[in-house]
Amino acid sequence: MEPIRNLESLVSHVAALGVKKRLAVAAAQDSHTLGAVFMAVRAGIVEPILVGDSAKIAAETEKAGISGLEVVHVPNTADAVKDAVRLVRSGEADILMKGLVNTDVYLRAILDKEQGLLPPNSVLSHVCVVQVPSYPRLLFLTDVAVIPFPTLEQKLAMTRYAVETARRFGIAEPKVALLAATEKTSPKMPNTVDAAIIAKQCDRGQYTGAVVDGPLDVFLACDPASLPIKGLQTPVAGEADVLVFPNIECANILYKGLMLFAGGELAATMMGTTRPVTITSRSESALSKFYSVAMACLQ
Amino acid sequence: MEPIRNLESLVSHVAALGVKKRLAVAAAQDSHTLGAVFMAVRAGIVEPILVGDSAKIAAETEKAGISGLEVVHVPNTADAVKDAVRLVRSGEADILMKGLVNTDVYLRAILDKEQGLLPPNSVLSHVCVVQVPSYPRLLFLTDVAVIPFPTLEQKLAMTRYAVETARRFGIAEPKVALLAATEKTSPKMPNTVDAAIIAKQCDRGQYTGAVVDGPLDVFLACDPASLPIKGLQTPVAGEADVLVFPNIECANILYKGLMLFAGGELAATMMGTTRPVTITSRSESALSKFYSVAMACLQ
Repeated sequence: MEPIRNLESLVSHVAALGVKKRLAVAAAQDSHTLGAVFMAVRAGIVEPILVGDSAKIAAETEKAGISGLEVVHVPNTADAVKDAVRLVRSGEADILMKGLVNTDVYLRAILDKEQGLLPPNSVLSHVCVVQVPSYPRLLFLTDVAVIPFPTLEQKLAMTRYAVETARRFGIAEPKVALLAATEKTSPKMPNTVDAAIIAKQCDRGQYTGAVVDGPLDVFLACDPASLPIKGLQTPVAGEADVLVFPNIECANILYKGLMLFAGGELAATMMGTTRPVTITSRSESALSKFYSVAMACLQ
Repeated sequence: MEPIRNLESLVSHVAALGVKKRLAVAAAQDSHTLGAVFMAVRAGIVEPILVGDSAKIAAETEKAGISGLEVVHVPNTADAVKDAVRLVRSGEADILMKGLVNTDVYLRAILDKEQGLLPPNSVLSHVCVVQVPSYPRLLFLTDVAVIPFPTLEQKLAMTRYAVETARRFGIAEPKVALLAATEKTSPKMPNTVDAAIIAKQCDRGQYTGAVVDGPLDVFLACDPASLPIKGLQTPVAGEADVLVFPNIECANILYKGLMLFAGGELAATMMGTTRPVTITSRSESALSKFYSVAMACLQ
């Protein structure tokens, strides 16, 4: 498969697969969420089940001139989320999509041991795919949203998830940069120690199907011109596909910086769940939510 | 004074002051450093004293067609740094500029208790001024380079330094965002607690001449459109001049992201020293080093 190099091609790639995924939308009652669902329906990639307040849903579907969508009337938000999760858990739907609901309430339903979507001992994390006009490839970032201060174990899971995702985008051997402020390892900067350990695992062949190096700064990760300037060799070679961040603060600040200052666009899904789950925030655009659904269709 | 809104105007502003600062250049023997010095000489803002290997200096001055500059021949790099620091300490020069020398060696000379440039009990930090085409004002970032994991006390000093710097750029009441992954304060995210404390000090009038709020994410700090979306009020209002970061990893990753993905250009100086000191890295362009000298001339 040809690598998917931007989010528009992600959609056309998924559409070309010819499989409509069943999308359970939890609290499907705001215009951004439903706008994204309608785009996905028009692109022919999903069959939605809209769980939420049917009056609000009817108003939006009418405005959009769309009819015939399946609606489950559950006006209470927390109940709507539980019902949507149940649909996915039972196999009646393939993908869970977040609507107009607080992240806390949404996550509680997903994490529920009896009725949720988290397998035992699974690390719950998040991969965000960002495209910016100034970089020739998609950037797979982890973790901008779920794990605050990852342990080494969690960073290993994050790296694995991001590599898996990049490979589903057709990148046969993703280049992974374990980001830091500097390429030097020092016990004073614990994140650089974690990065060195993960990178050495890659050297020892403990990772297959990916090139992993770190600690690297943003330039060594994403700017080929910086290698000769610093006189440094790294197989990532300024062509990183995946950026693994020290913690949620670094990740969140960079991803929002890319969106705001570098004209970024994104798709994002959770990782570690039994089924694909989107978790875009309420302030994300309909387009980002649509791309996130397309990304979930690939999982 | 009119606010300085970009780095070109910084230079013309400094030139219009009509004062040539004496610039001691430590290990003045690479083309980026000397290129920056020559730009500053041509702009009429400095009189340099080039401390370093006179043969290498002569080769570069000849190439640039510049003559008559003061050269002090000190071929050993560590000695050249010490001599340049001595010139500044004694008042024979006004500004210390970093040339082709490792940051460790450079800092050691500055931090020397007997012969250095650090007053007792001073917090040594760093302010970096970034301009990006996608933001209508300069961004004063701290600390991308010196303090790894600042304490609350150090964050207070960083905030004070960045506000001082912004005010020297003619921004009468700088808006300061204490950055985090979210605008919510939680003991699980210690940086958000520090931000809340500093913001409350501002509410209580403990800061004058600045508007300080946090924790704020990048959108609330720098995107006015995000306030109504989140339904949140903050006096920073998406128009931040100053960004105070949780730690060096966040700061370094965002600043390099802005340089690489958002077409950024920068100037930077150290803060807390007895005299202005530049500390741009070897990989920085001659233009960034030149802007940093102009910034030091304002201090």
